[in-house]
Amino acid sequence: MTPPADTRTFFRSRWVDPPEGVEQLDPARLAPGFRAGAAHCGLKGGGKTDVGLLVCDAPNVSSSLLLTRNASAAAPVRVCRQRVDRDAVRAAVVNAGNANAETGEQGFADAWAMCERAGEQLGLDPAAVAVAETGVIGVPLPVDAVLDGIAEAAGSLSADAGAAFAEAILTTDRWPKSCTLTAGGVTISAQAKGGGMIQPNMATMLCFVQTDAVVEDPTAALRTATDASFERITVDGQMSTNDTVLLQATGAAGEPLPAGLLEAVLLQLALEVLADGEGSTRVCRVAVEGAASAGEAERVARAIANSPLVKTALFGRDPNWGRIAQAAGMALAGEDLEEIGADSIDAAELGEDLVEAELGLRLDRGEHRAHVYFSDLGYEYVRINADYTT
Amino acid sequence: MTPPADTRTFFRSRWVDPPEGVEQLDPARLAPGFRAGAAHCGLKGGGKTDVGLLVCDAPNVSSSLLLTRNASAAAPVRVCRQRVDRDAVRAAVVNAGNANAETGEQGFADAWAMCERAGEQLGLDPAAVAVAETGVIGVPLPVDAVLDGIAEAAGSLSADAGAAFAEAILTTDRWPKSCTLTAGGVTISAQAKGGGMIQPNMATMLCFVQTDAVVEDPTAALRTATDASFERITVDGQMSTNDTVLLQATGAAGEPLPAGLLEAVLLQLALEVLADGEGSTRVCRVAVEGAASAGEAERVARAIANSPLVKTALFGRDPNWGRIAQAAGMALAGEDLEEIGADSIDAAELGEDLVEAELGLRLDRGEHRAHVYFSDLGYEYVRINADYTT
Repeated sequence: MTPPADTRTFFRSRWVDPPEGVEQLDPARLAPGFRAGAAHCGLKGGGKTDVGLLVCDAPNVSSSLLLTRNASAAAPVRVCRQRVDRDAVRAAVVNAGNANAETGEQGFADAWAMCERAGEQLGLDPAAVAVAETGVIGVPLPVDAVLDGIAEAAGSLSADAGAAFAEAILTTDRWPKSCTLTAGGVTISAQAKGGGMIQPNMATMLCFVQTDAVVEDPTAALRTATDASFERITVDGQMSTNDTVLLQATGAAGEPLPAGLLEAVLLQLALEVLADGEGSTRVCRVAVEGAASAGEAERVARAIANSPLVKTALFGRDPNWGRIAQAAGMALAGEDLEEIGADSIDAAELGEDLVEAELGLRLDRGEHRAHVYFSDLGYEYVRINADYTT
Repeated sequence: MTPPADTRTFFRSRWVDPPEGVEQLDPARLAPGFRAGAAHCGLKGGGKTDVGLLVCDAPNVSSSLLLTRNASAAAPVRVCRQRVDRDAVRAAVVNAGNANAETGEQGFADAWAMCERAGEQLGLDPAAVAVAETGVIGVPLPVDAVLDGIAEAAGSLSADAGAAFAEAILTTDRWPKSCTLTAGGVTISAQAKGGGMIQPNMATMLCFVQTDAVVEDPTAALRTATDASFERITVDGQMSTNDTVLLQATGAAGEPLPAGLLEAVLLQLALEVLADGEGSTRVCRVAVEGAASAGEAERVARAIANSPLVKTALFGRDPNWGRIAQAAGMALAGEDLEEIGADSIDAAELGEDLVEAELGLRLDRGEHRAHVYFSDLGYEYVRINADYTT
C-alpha cells in the first residue's frame, strides 16, 4: 500500500462520519496557540528527524494524557505517570528510534532529563512537559544526543511545524499522519504515528491533539473518542509498552468542539495507523451481531481480528470464511455454534481488491454487537519484525 | 527445516525424558492386534494417499477419544461426540485434504457415512468407528470418492502399515510423525499430523496411539499425557475445529505401560508437530517462574508464545528480549513489572542457530511456574496460509 494519493483529503475512510461543515487546512499549521519543532539527533539513520517538541503558549491549557496499561511500561510512561501533571500539560517532548523501555533506573532518569531539558528550553516546570518515546525496546537511550536534539528542536519552534513534528515521531510508518481542521469556530490539529505492536487497551501508539476549543472535561472527551477509535484497531494484537495520547485545549476560541469532531479525527488517524501497520496491504472491519453479551461480541470480534489465519487469508485475498468460523468457535470454546454457516458470513468483498473490506458475522445468541478494525498479515510484517534490531 | 536426518531415533528432543530401556522398532509395524490401510481418493493431488483406516482386531479394546472444544467443531467431531462410543473405539477412519467443517447437515451425514462404510468393510458397528478429517474448512466433502477410498483402504489392511497410515493423514506437514516402541513387555505405536491452527485447548490435531498394554483408565492416562504435551504447544494460537487424539489399548500383553512412556511419546510427537508447523524453522520453550498464581504463569507464557513480535524475532534469530517483556507486560496489564530486566531473561541462545531454543523468564511475584513450547513465524507461514484455498 502506498501513501494516500491525495493527502489534502483527510477524511478518507468510509467508516468515518465527520460532522458537517468541517474544512481542512494545511496540516503544517497547528491550532492557534501551539508551536512545534523537530531535529535530528542520530536515533534514525539518513539524517531523518527523530526529536519532536510541541508547546502550548497559553498558560491555562487543559489537557488529558492517556497511557498504556502494559505492566512493562517504558520509562517515559512511568515518568508521565509519576511526575507529570496530566491535567496541565504545556509541552510534549518526543523521540523516535528508541522506546527507552526495559532500560531500568537509568532509562527513567533519561526520560526525566528529557522533560527537564525541554522545560529549561521553554521556560516551563518539567512537570508540565509530557515525554513520549518510540522505537526499539531494551536498548539504552543515547541521552546526550537526545538532549542536544531537544535544544535544537526548541530553536526551530514554529506555528507551521505540524507536518515537521508528524515526520519526526515516525518509526516504521510509511507516511506521516496529521491534519488541521476547522469547524464551528474552532481549530483542531493532530499528529499520530503507528507501526506494529498495536492493540491498545488504554491508548495507542503516539498521538497528539491540539485545539483552541473549550473542552470542559478533557479526560472524558479523550476517553470517549479513543474508545471508538484507537481502542477498536489491531495490527498484531500486541499492547505496546509506550502508547500515549495527549489532548491539549486552550479554550481561546471560546467555543466547544463540534459534536463528533474529535471522534472522527481520532478514528481517521487510527485507520491510517492500521492501513500503515507493518506490512499492511488492506484494512478490514469485522462486525459481530447477535452475541449473548457485550463481552462475548467483543471476544469473538477480537478473536477474528487477531487470528493469523484470518489475517494471512486477508493478505491473500482469500475468501476463507471457514477460518472466521474457526476463530469465532475458538472464542466460544465449549459452546456449540452450529448456526454459523456460509450464508451468514458476508465475505464476498474479501475476493476483491479493496483497501477497506467489510466482514459481517451474525450469531444467533442474543442482541449484542461489537466491531473491530484490523489489518492483514503478510511478508512485510515478517521482514520488518524479523530484522528489527539486527 | 528439513525432516530429521535420522528418523530411526524417535526421542530427539532434549525436553523429552523417556523411561529407561525403551527400544525402537520399525515405525511401519503397529502394536500387536492392530492393522492399518491407506488409499488415494483424490482429496490430495499427486496421487498421494489421503484416506487412512486403522482397526483393532481385539474385541475388548479399551479406548479414549479427546476432541476439540471449538464451538465451530467439524462434522467428524460432532459425529464422534454424538454417535461414537468413545470408550470402545475399535477402528478409526480418516481423510486428509478436507476438514468437513462448516459443512452443515450434509457434512454430518457425510462423516457418519464414513463410519458406516468403514463399519461395513470391517464388520463392525459404526458406533465403534471414530472418524477424523483434516484440511480445508467450508468445502463440501466429495463423499462418494472418500467412501470408495475407505473400501480400497480396507483391502490393504496390514500389521505393517503404520508408516503408510501416518503418510495418509498428512496435510501441510513436511514429514510423517510416527513411532513404534517397546518397553516393559509392551508395545506402543503412534501416528500424528500437524500443520497450522495449533493451540489446542483439549486435544490437538490428529494423533492415534495403539498399544497392547493394559490401560485401566484410558481417559485419565490420555488426559495426563496430553496435558503435558499437546496442550503445551502453539504454532499460531489457533484452536482447530478438528483436533482429535485417540488412544486404543488391547491389554493383550498383560502388562501396564511403563511410567512416563505415554507422556514421552506424546511430547515427542507434539514437538515434531511444532517443528513441522507451517513454515517453522525452530522451536522454543518459554519457562516462566515466580508468578503469583498458576493461571498468571500460564497467561504470561502463552502471551509470549503467541506474540507475533516474539515469533518473528525468533524467526530472525533476533535476541529482541524487549518484546518478551512487552508480551509479559501485556498479559499483566494494569500491574507494574519493574522487576523484569535484561539479566533476568536468558535469551542468549536466541542468537545461535539452534533448532530448539530455551527461554527463561523470572518474575518476582510468587512461586508458580508454567512452560509452553512454540514455533517461529516466518515467510512460509504467510505463503502457506495466504494461498491455502485459492
